[in-house]
Amino acid sequence: MSSQPQSLDPLSRPPVPSAAQSAREEELVARVLGSFANAPDPRLKLIMESLVRHTHAFLREVRLSEAEWRAAIEFLTDAGHITDDRRQEFVLLSDVLGASMQTITINNEAYENATEATVLGPFFVEGAPLVQLGGDISFGASGEPCWVEGSVTATDGRPLGGARLEVWEADDQGFYDVQRDAERLSARAHLFTDGDGEFRFWALTPTPYPIPHDGPVGRLLAATGRSPLRASHLHFKVSSPGYRELTTHIFVRGDELLGSDAVFGVRESLIKTFERRPGDAPTPDGRELGGRGWSRVRFEIVLAPAAAS
Amino acid sequence: MSSQPQSLDPLSRPPVPSAAQSAREEELVARVLGSFANAPDPRLKLIMESLVRHTHAFLREVRLSEAEWRAAIEFLTDAGHITDDRRQEFVLLSDVLGASMQTITINNEAYENATEATVLGPFFVEGAPLVQLGGDISFGASGEPCWVEGSVTATDGRPLGGARLEVWEADDQGFYDVQRDAERLSARAHLFTDGDGEFRFWALTPTPYPIPHDGPVGRLLAATGRSPLRASHLHFKVSSPGYRELTTHIFVRGDELLGSDAVFGVRESLIKTFERRPGDAPTPDGRELGGRGWSRVRFEIVLAPAAAS
Repeated sequence: MSSQPQSLDPLSRPPVPSAAQSAREEELVARVLGSFANAPDPRLKLIMESLVRHTHAFLREVRLSEAEWRAAIEFLTDAGHITDDRRQEFVLLSDVLGASMQTITINNEAYENATEATVLGPFFVEGAPLVQLGGDISFGASGEPCWVEGSVTATDGRPLGGARLEVWEADDQGFYDVQRDAERLSARAHLFTDGDGEFRFWALTPTPYPIPHDGPVGRLLAATGRSPLRASHLHFKVSSPGYRELTTHIFVRGDELLGSDAVFGVRESLIKTFERRPGDAPTPDGRELGGRGWSRVRFEIVLAPAAAS
Repeated sequence: MSSQPQSLDPLSRPPVPSAAQSAREEELVARVLGSFANAPDPRLKLIMESLVRHTHAFLREVRLSEAEWRAAIEFLTDAGHITDDRRQEFVLLSDVLGASMQTITINNEAYENATEATVLGPFFVEGAPLVQLGGDISFGASGEPCWVEGSVTATDGRPLGGARLEVWEADDQGFYDVQRDAERLSARAHLFTDGDGEFRFWALTPTPYPIPHDGPVGRLLAATGRSPLRASHLHFKVSSPGYRELTTHIFVRGDELLGSDAVFGVRESLIKTFERRPGDAPTPDGRELGGRGWSRVRFEIVLAPAAAS
């Protein structure tokens, strides 16, 4: 059925297979699905069956060549070999395909006025140091000082005192602490809201940076004409008993990367105005910054009830 | 919209999202697809767009939880770390999902009476030793001797002299040479058909064996109630100028694993009768086997023209 040379298609659209060929391909899909018939865990069974259906639909739709299959195996192998305790290429892959953001979207349905979630990213670390309200999370990381303040409330406006915030960000060189050799944590901390649900701390004005792009995911982005840059952001993870845990970022209004974030993390509601202040402007807490310019931002965080998840 | 507790479903079917939620999810898919708008290679663009559509359809269909997403990242990380020059866990993963066999099926359409293809598997090695016709490919690997003979022809019956055959198999302990520490190749060779397109060689009667199942793929099979066993088989890769290269196996009629091959490689047309002979039966070439039983099989190989691929 394919002894005729196929016509060249400038869009590289694959040929449509014959009915007999389609039947052979469908019979195989049915056989693979059947192999999961006795899976004891119904949830795992459902996931594997769906994965098989979609994987085979993809292979058949693009008519994947054997050389392309080998390239995919090499890609995954390279991703596995570059992944270690500090570098997670599979998370990056999930991120640049939008799969991480879709998982976040699926698991954090919009709920009334609750703050929207976005991706966790690969750089969250447990055990970041505690800072008091008004403290500085930078711990020596370089960047322009940024005063961050806000509140944590329920959707009805009730303040949530004692809510825990984890905050973390890249320095102005574009690196998170864990990407450097040093063991010392910096530009990350945890803190708690006061009795009025308010928080405030010094951080760094977020700057854009590329996701690690010296590996297979970076090569994929380059080959497809995509930028590895992330829009400038500051990470938050916020929890309070009885409320849905919130993983999110705030982004910088005016950042020209807002429309092309490499991991699709931007949501309009998370874009905040960072007010730039000259070096001689008095700081909110009277801190002396040695004449450096600084910025300030406010973030009102609203948590959905735990039952909404 | 999901502040009501969801009803328990014994089949773990995920809830249907609201229209507003579906719209948020679809908007994200469109944004990810849009990121490939400027990909310079139209084939890669088509592949990535299809991959994105099917990946997101899978995530949305099963409503993947964040914990399940983390488990998937861990699975891929483990697969990457167990993969090395001798062990290819991503090929195994592709194999047990039927993706390898589907790729083979897509790229080797049935053509008249041409022999059907099946998976290459992870144990093919370039540079296997040459044996003369009638030679022994076992090179010391343990197992019952098996006389393999047959022919290579075109679909019109014309014999193909000088066709190259690569043959390889596991020993009767279930291991390929490359799975052992020894550098020495065994139970694999290459040879050429004679002027009449005929071939003959001594090999080992194929026995069933498990795919390597001490890694993440093995754990996945166990968790889903699947066996890691492959039906007994002998690998062939056959090439002749002007003809479509054929990668295939022959399977053993009567093997009880024919219906549950872990990698879905079995095709009815590839099941052959291996005649069992007692130790005192004379061998086809007069070879003395020291009283051991042996077997014999015949395999008529028919190659499609190269234009059929």
